[in-house]
Amino acid sequence: MKFTINRPAFIKYLSDVQRAISSRTTIPVLTGIKMVADKTGLMLSGSDSDISIEIFIPANDDINDLEILEEGGIVLPARIFNDIVRKMSDEKITIDVGENFQTNITSANASFKINSINVDNYPNFPMIDSNEVITLPTNLFKQVIQHTVIATSTQESRPILTGVNITIENNTLKAVATDSHRLSQRIIPITTPDNLRENSYKVIIPGKSLVELSRIVEDQDTIDMMVTENQVLFKAENLYFYSRLLEGYYPDTNRLIPTSSSTTLVMNAADLLQATDRASLLSHEGKNNVVKLSISADKVELSGNSPEIGTVEEELQYQEATGDPLVISFNPDYLKDALRTFGHQDVSVSFTAPIRPFTVVPLDDNTEIEQAFIQLITPVRTY
Amino acid sequence: MKFTINRPAFIKYLSDVQRAISSRTTIPVLTGIKMVADKTGLMLSGSDSDISIEIFIPANDDINDLEILEEGGIVLPARIFNDIVRKMSDEKITIDVGENFQTNITSANASFKINSINVDNYPNFPMIDSNEVITLPTNLFKQVIQHTVIATSTQESRPILTGVNITIENNTLKAVATDSHRLSQRIIPITTPDNLRENSYKVIIPGKSLVELSRIVEDQDTIDMMVTENQVLFKAENLYFYSRLLEGYYPDTNRLIPTSSSTTLVMNAADLLQATDRASLLSHEGKNNVVKLSISADKVELSGNSPEIGTVEEELQYQEATGDPLVISFNPDYLKDALRTFGHQDVSVSFTAPIRPFTVVPLDDNTEIEQAFIQLITPVRTY
Repeated sequence: MKFTINRPAFIKYLSDVQRAISSRTTIPVLTGIKMVADKTGLMLSGSDSDISIEIFIPANDDINDLEILEEGGIVLPARIFNDIVRKMSDEKITIDVGENFQTNITSANASFKINSINVDNYPNFPMIDSNEVITLPTNLFKQVIQHTVIATSTQESRPILTGVNITIENNTLKAVATDSHRLSQRIIPITTPDNLRENSYKVIIPGKSLVELSRIVEDQDTIDMMVTENQVLFKAENLYFYSRLLEGYYPDTNRLIPTSSSTTLVMNAADLLQATDRASLLSHEGKNNVVKLSISADKVELSGNSPEIGTVEEELQYQEATGDPLVISFNPDYLKDALRTFGHQDVSVSFTAPIRPFTVVPLDDNTEIEQAFIQLITPVRTY
Repeated sequence: MKFTINRPAFIKYLSDVQRAISSRTTIPVLTGIKMVADKTGLMLSGSDSDISIEIFIPANDDINDLEILEEGGIVLPARIFNDIVRKMSDEKITIDVGENFQTNITSANASFKINSINVDNYPNFPMIDSNEVITLPTNLFKQVIQHTVIATSTQESRPILTGVNITIENNTLKAVATDSHRLSQRIIPITTPDNLRENSYKVIIPGKSLVELSRIVEDQDTIDMMVTENQVLFKAENLYFYSRLLEGYYPDTNRLIPTSSSTTLVMNAADLLQATDRASLLSHEGKNNVVKLSISADKVELSGNSPEIGTVEEELQYQEATGDPLVISFNPDYLKDALRTFGHQDVSVSFTAPIRPFTVVPLDDNTEIEQAFIQLITPVRTY
């Protein structure tokens, strides 16, 4: 294998594939990056066995300036290869596999000779030869990821809760995540092709995989999703992103979302976020990470305290507070995560009782889908 | 004590004083920030007992908008106080010490009540009532710091080597640091007042203190230095920076600097830095962090290797290589640190023998002082 390529462009592709490569894997070959060149271009592959990323660089286009001089393949140690390419000085770089799997990397006057691995030793990625392709609007789907992964669990005690539960049916995609203390749900309209309109898909995708996907996918119109029994493939232009699926039964979350409320607060999400952030300064210092919200007819107050450090009180500036007076305590970090998903929108926060979950939804949701965007938080009993 | 102040300005001052405050101190009151207000302004103090920083904020100027409403003093927990001031929302903030050393911090609608400490419990800083004031050119002195601290030792086995040895005499300031593997020396001209012209000062200032000083001192013409037996005070406008001195005998470094050479290489410092950086990619992977420089009549080559990963070779682009052929091995990190102090200047690298230290000096040093700027590196014996 031998090729030359534009070095700055190559750096970008390598760092994208590197996202899938862990140095802590127990399978040595997976610390490497696989490169396979044929006359059409160069395929880069990396995997940590949870996610796998493949990027195809087409030959002879103007940006990459990729010239394939000899077909073939090799696996190079990923971290050091990345460093080498990054620290070269010339605009162009040449990769040339010599005898005994020794790879020459040259740019300007510098020349590296790196011990490499036979490409045949690299495991194959799953074959996802699916005729069932679901096309998703890229930017909206990235938003769905950002708005729901916040509620995935980081604890492996219930692995299923580390994923986002995605259901596709009736021309909608529904994403739900919960760590059992809070829940995030978004439903977006999608266009299902005619032949799949009767189908429904239910997959639980690890939150970590979705975060990596949303980081790596460029802004482009659509991304294709294909599902097999235990893998999902997202395919964008020249990018193949594989993730394993979580297996098991995802809890029924519909019954958790309250359908009525007795107290409602309407205010700007960013203002409430800042106040919660201030109140959490002291709750973070104490043993109980809890702040208190008091809603009465003419006053809404947020407070926090730490026995060692002191107390904080803040009267909130709100648009509307209606319904029964209420005092409720909760983990401020859950509310902060939830509020960040609304940016500077006005939100409606709805309560039923001090010991029942409360919800945050956008005041104007611009959609006819019910419960299209909900953040739910379980309060803390403080007495 | 009660005052109001412009919050963004206050944040800047607090973070400067915070540099001296460690949360890991064994003296609880030193985790606090001391504030003392009188009608002329507000003094902020912080200390980790190695360095102490005092900043005076004058009352009634336009930028700080400081209004002293009641004189007095208090010690507040520094980290949380910083966070609170930073996370408030209003342009203005009010600090008001109430009963039982409880301090009220208010801005817009948010109000914190923080447990504080009687200001009398804060230790006094050393009195440096010196008539012997040495005035240093600020920017040049910051450069001296940056160019020498790189060679201070980070190991406490020989504490004296963690400092920079500063000698002031004959209208010059000489700074030397060495960790016994490499040495940095800079000598700058200074203007000594008439009454001190016969005096000489020798102090060993901890490298860490000098780094903090150079970070905190704003760009201004001059900074004053005052020395007592075991402390040094640097005084800039409204800033007092105290550091302890290291006590003991600093080794005589003059005899370490070679006065002749048999091989000289002239090249651009930045180019040599980049090549050394590349060669170090592989030396970092091996057990011996060593690269090899080969100078012959018509070729200068830098190489590195790691038995596991591979090898690197680079032919250097130089201006001039004169004298005897030479092969020398050294720690590339020492050379990288040294070369960074020269920016994009051309440097002259002078060798006497493969087992003797070599020096890097600027090709044009623009000064009549001898040995004004030297980086010295001890090679590694590889056979």
